[in-house]
Amino acid sequence: MAEGVKGGPGPAGGPLAIGIAGLGTVGAGVVRLLAEHGDLLAARCGRRIVLAAVSARARGRERGIDLSGVRWHDDARSLAADEGVDAVVELIGGADGIALELCQAAFAHRKPVVSANKALIAHHGTALAAAAEGAGVTLGYEAAVAGGIPVVKALREGLAGNRIERVYGILNGTCNYILTMMREEGRELAEILAEAQALGYAEADPGFDIDGVDTAHKLAILASLAFGTRVDFAGIHVEGIREVGALDIRYAGELGYHIKLLGIASSTAHGIEQRVHPCMVSIDAPIAHVDGVFNAVAVEGDFVGGTMLGGRGAGAGPTASAVVADLVDIARGRTMPVFGIPAATLERTPTAPMGRHVGAYYIRLMVVDRPGVMAGVTAALRDEAVSVEALIQRGRNPDDVVPVVLTTHETREAAMMRALARIAKLDSMRQPPRAIRIEKL
Amino acid sequence: MAEGVKGGPGPAGGPLAIGIAGLGTVGAGVVRLLAEHGDLLAARCGRRIVLAAVSARARGRERGIDLSGVRWHDDARSLAADEGVDAVVELIGGADGIALELCQAAFAHRKPVVSANKALIAHHGTALAAAAEGAGVTLGYEAAVAGGIPVVKALREGLAGNRIERVYGILNGTCNYILTMMREEGRELAEILAEAQALGYAEADPGFDIDGVDTAHKLAILASLAFGTRVDFAGIHVEGIREVGALDIRYAGELGYHIKLLGIASSTAHGIEQRVHPCMVSIDAPIAHVDGVFNAVAVEGDFVGGTMLGGRGAGAGPTASAVVADLVDIARGRTMPVFGIPAATLERTPTAPMGRHVGAYYIRLMVVDRPGVMAGVTAALRDEAVSVEALIQRGRNPDDVVPVVLTTHETREAAMMRALARIAKLDSMRQPPRAIRIEKL
Repeated sequence: MAEGVKGGPGPAGGPLAIGIAGLGTVGAGVVRLLAEHGDLLAARCGRRIVLAAVSARARGRERGIDLSGVRWHDDARSLAADEGVDAVVELIGGADGIALELCQAAFAHRKPVVSANKALIAHHGTALAAAAEGAGVTLGYEAAVAGGIPVVKALREGLAGNRIERVYGILNGTCNYILTMMREEGRELAEILAEAQALGYAEADPGFDIDGVDTAHKLAILASLAFGTRVDFAGIHVEGIREVGALDIRYAGELGYHIKLLGIASSTAHGIEQRVHPCMVSIDAPIAHVDGVFNAVAVEGDFVGGTMLGGRGAGAGPTASAVVADLVDIARGRTMPVFGIPAATLERTPTAPMGRHVGAYYIRLMVVDRPGVMAGVTAALRDEAVSVEALIQRGRNPDDVVPVVLTTHETREAAMMRALARIAKLDSMRQPPRAIRIEKL
Repeated sequence: MAEGVKGGPGPAGGPLAIGIAGLGTVGAGVVRLLAEHGDLLAARCGRRIVLAAVSARARGRERGIDLSGVRWHDDARSLAADEGVDAVVELIGGADGIALELCQAAFAHRKPVVSANKALIAHHGTALAAAAEGAGVTLGYEAAVAGGIPVVKALREGLAGNRIERVYGILNGTCNYILTMMREEGRELAEILAEAQALGYAEADPGFDIDGVDTAHKLAILASLAFGTRVDFAGIHVEGIREVGALDIRYAGELGYHIKLLGIASSTAHGIEQRVHPCMVSIDAPIAHVDGVFNAVAVEGDFVGGTMLGGRGAGAGPTASAVVADLVDIARGRTMPVFGIPAATLERTPTAPMGRHVGAYYIRLMVVDRPGVMAGVTAALRDEAVSVEALIQRGRNPDDVVPVVLTTHETREAAMMRALARIAKLDSMRQPPRAIRIEKL
């Protein structure tokens, strides 16, 4: 592949020589894409994109890709100094360590970086953007959010005429797969998770996915792009899906909802609200039908209205597609500030406290069914001015533990939490109350 | 708005002065967007976008926008020569005439053009792209396809790493609204259309929309972007929705389909297949749930897999959003070949003849219910090697006219059409057979 280096047909002339750090599934996918689409990319960029150097842990491993004629670096960081490398592709992963050092070294050498590393951008995005812009180069991270779906480009360019009001999405395929299977098969999370792990859809240590951390990394990036604010991972309220029961999913269906793990960022009077948690989503909302491993991101702009982009959020092919899209921009000489406006002008906007969030709630209580049970519950809600919209209680069996499900009208999170704390202490409660936010989309 | 012209904060310095030709709904929307988001756009572009001049038919009309200090041109074409105009926005409409002349004049003056005019691009896209590139400027047309949805950018940039295999979409909100209402209310097209006209959702002369012409304009543009081919509007097989009956929509529901008017372009062994016609779409396909006036475009790439972008395909706000996205690219100095590769290299690819299309079909026959009716039908199908998948016939009333519905396995269009021609001549037929293609998505 790297052989036919004669400069592309276009005005830019010479090839763009890249160095890839990390040759896992995604790295091998990028190498394969560049090899298969060499001519197509040359036509689109006006120059060839050529793999000049790589770095990975195990030099000898069989990856099904041809690396003949490609320089090998044992230390990824030395890719940055390689005089034959024009742009660095960082596919190592991890919020710190070598990935971070490689990016810093690349910018020190005034070389652009393309990264698929959401943890890195979520934790160091603002500083890295400043470093890139200081060096007059770019940092591409389309692959860090929602895989092959070109949502970074949509937010930063395609919707640049809008003030963005809200951005939200299904950003983790593993969680979406688990919730979809729970709904379709009526089974509990633990069972589906074990199967997903066996199938390779979920990591052996699933916390990163199912506790919402991965979704939060991506949300932090989307929020910064949408609102022109500094990347604020620490300001995200994060809850995962471990507490979602098959019973909740069944009740959701009865009430006209699907349960989805969403990352949601919105601009409020109290600052930027960023939250990741399971949501009850009306089955009339398009995102309710994004199932299985698929991802989707919805963007609400003041002129464009609601738009949604969906597709595969992970995997070698989709991620390689996004990495190469960034390389194409670099090869075409089309760069811009990393988050759409210069890093130095990204705002430090206050984090809207979760207690001030306003929304409706689904509550499930497991209570001993005896006279007067509901009096304590309704008193707690009344005292916090939480207004009940619907109540489902059936299958009465005196002295059995039965579920009581209620939905509320819009209320303030802090009031809801105080009411739930009081309800949790009632004599007849047999489990901590479960609350799932109902999201108006 | 145009007052604070001091040059933006960014490196590019001076403002981008634009001239807008056409001040209808969309033109007024663009003016409003620029006025409301002047500072936001300046931050994003590194310079201000300033309205310097306009042209429209009725100078005195009240448009709810402030045009003080903006130069007026009675002849839109003279905007191109206005020395105070850096970029021209063409919102006149029409495939020829002044819109075309304005674009040509702008390129002659080496000024970029942004246009929302799908007919213009569908008919003259290749020539205009060549003219723009010859002048070293760009032609932006994000607003010409699917309104505010940034699908041109997605195809030309965000998915540039892929060989595109198929692109398809719901590209006309009027048709989608009509088909959605027919499904939801079980009524006939004529009735819904009359209502839509009264509500302003459909034009007084609806042919452009419901005969599929508007969808075909947009499809021609998408196909060129997807496959790197010359824009080939004449090569599109176009059927509208006039023949779709409430009865067909009901049967579609029974069979697990929704009926959508799709524009579909795919790369086949016989060339590029471009077609616009009503489709039976499985309710399991995400696009089946894109209802009402919403548009959606699905792109299938070899690495990214399937992606879908949805949102509002028309209206002042969404269209203005797309126009300004193109202006932002120009203000940022980020331009590229109009169709992703230089116009001179766009391929002249043969049009795949519709007769060679392979797919499954839904057929509805209105027959007199008497013994032996089906023998003629099945003989015609057998002789053309069309294999029946399912058959619905019920409500038997000897000598009444009853619908007979059947679906076929995949077959060649030419064979299907020959069989239908023979079936149409059978004695017991009381209406011409209706055929709707079943689309595998």
